[in-house]
Amino acid sequence: MKLYGYFRSSAAYRVRIALNLKGLAYTQAPVNLVKGEQRSGANLARHAQGLVPVLETDEGAQLTQSLAICEYLDERHPDPALLPANATGRARVRALAHVVACEIHPLNNLKVLKYLVGELGVDDDAKLAWYRHWISEGFDALEAMLTAENGTGAFCHGDTPTLADICLVPQVFNAERFECDLSTYPTIRRIAERCNDLEAFQKAAPGEQPDAG
Amino acid sequence: MKLYGYFRSSAAYRVRIALNLKGLAYTQAPVNLVKGEQRSGANLARHAQGLVPVLETDEGAQLTQSLAICEYLDERHPDPALLPANATGRARVRALAHVVACEIHPLNNLKVLKYLVGELGVDDDAKLAWYRHWISEGFDALEAMLTAENGTGAFCHGDTPTLADICLVPQVFNAERFECDLSTYPTIRRIAERCNDLEAFQKAAPGEQPDAG
Repeated sequence: MKLYGYFRSSAAYRVRIALNLKGLAYTQAPVNLVKGEQRSGANLARHAQGLVPVLETDEGAQLTQSLAICEYLDERHPDPALLPANATGRARVRALAHVVACEIHPLNNLKVLKYLVGELGVDDDAKLAWYRHWISEGFDALEAMLTAENGTGAFCHGDTPTLADICLVPQVFNAERFECDLSTYPTIRRIAERCNDLEAFQKAAPGEQPDAG
Repeated sequence: MKLYGYFRSSAAYRVRIALNLKGLAYTQAPVNLVKGEQRSGANLARHAQGLVPVLETDEGAQLTQSLAICEYLDERHPDPALLPANATGRARVRALAHVVACEIHPLNNLKVLKYLVGELGVDDDAKLAWYRHWISEGFDALEAMLTAENGTGAFCHGDTPTLADICLVPQVFNAERFECDLSTYPTIRRIAERCNDLEAFQKAAPGEQPDAG
């Protein structure tokens, strides 16, 4: 398989973790988001939104949207599972994943930050406050869910990594990069550290990628 | 089952469509987002983010995040299916759904619009431009995917409604409500109209809910 991504893209980072957890071989084709390569004709032909990641399967299908790709990998390569066996547990894991993927990350995307600065004339301080606001709002909820709900174990759900951890770790990476205060999120930090003990997560980290600048 | 929602919430609208497509009985418990009832202790106990929807199952589980709920319903009540049988088709349907759920809708949420006006002092015109910008960017991509890719049929994927249509229709409803120009999206409009021919979609529409104002 071939992964079109970018070392710092949260969404590509998620897919790298999933591929590594599954032990699947893949090559990487970097698309430089800072240079605008995602808007090139070649990338738009693969991804109508002009984004990354795109996973090209061995059958030649070009899959987009990181969570859709992770679910695909889990269906095609079920072992080890990224979702628990029972429907209620699966719903919990997906809900935790979606707090990151549908509530935090979409607001802190490069294209959104560019709109804030360009169209709305927001200054650097207000941009950083925006960034941190959505992380803290989302992490407040995640921390509450992870401490109050029964399913939490060594990882977000139980004692093996799931789709929820795959979303959490790149978001924690971004939060640390933008120096967000994570002192009030002991459970999030504990789980992210546990994940980062694993080679699958280590090898997926932005600094380990061939295009890391 | 019991659905905590709000008539105009896009996310609750998705869950109503899914429940109706499955032919499942449910009662509704409205949470008035304009009055701020989502921040009440009762709602926060159900949903740590202080949002809707929450689906309370007959076993007493309280499920959050609309797409996680729809996937749960599809797993527990497989007929009629909301996802195609093969993994590549499922990835495509989820990707189409996520264009709406992870790229358009999170940016146009009530809490985001409030932040723009409150913290960033954005005026009404700029707020409306923001709203329309993310819809048009997302719909440009969706229209391209729906016209260029093989899977599209009477609905977003094939000839029966899927998770992609469940996300599309509430987003089209919002676009129309904010008078976005949809003339360049003939495929999106065709599919949304086809969906709205079905009773499951009609009965889920905001104007049909008990709390419609």
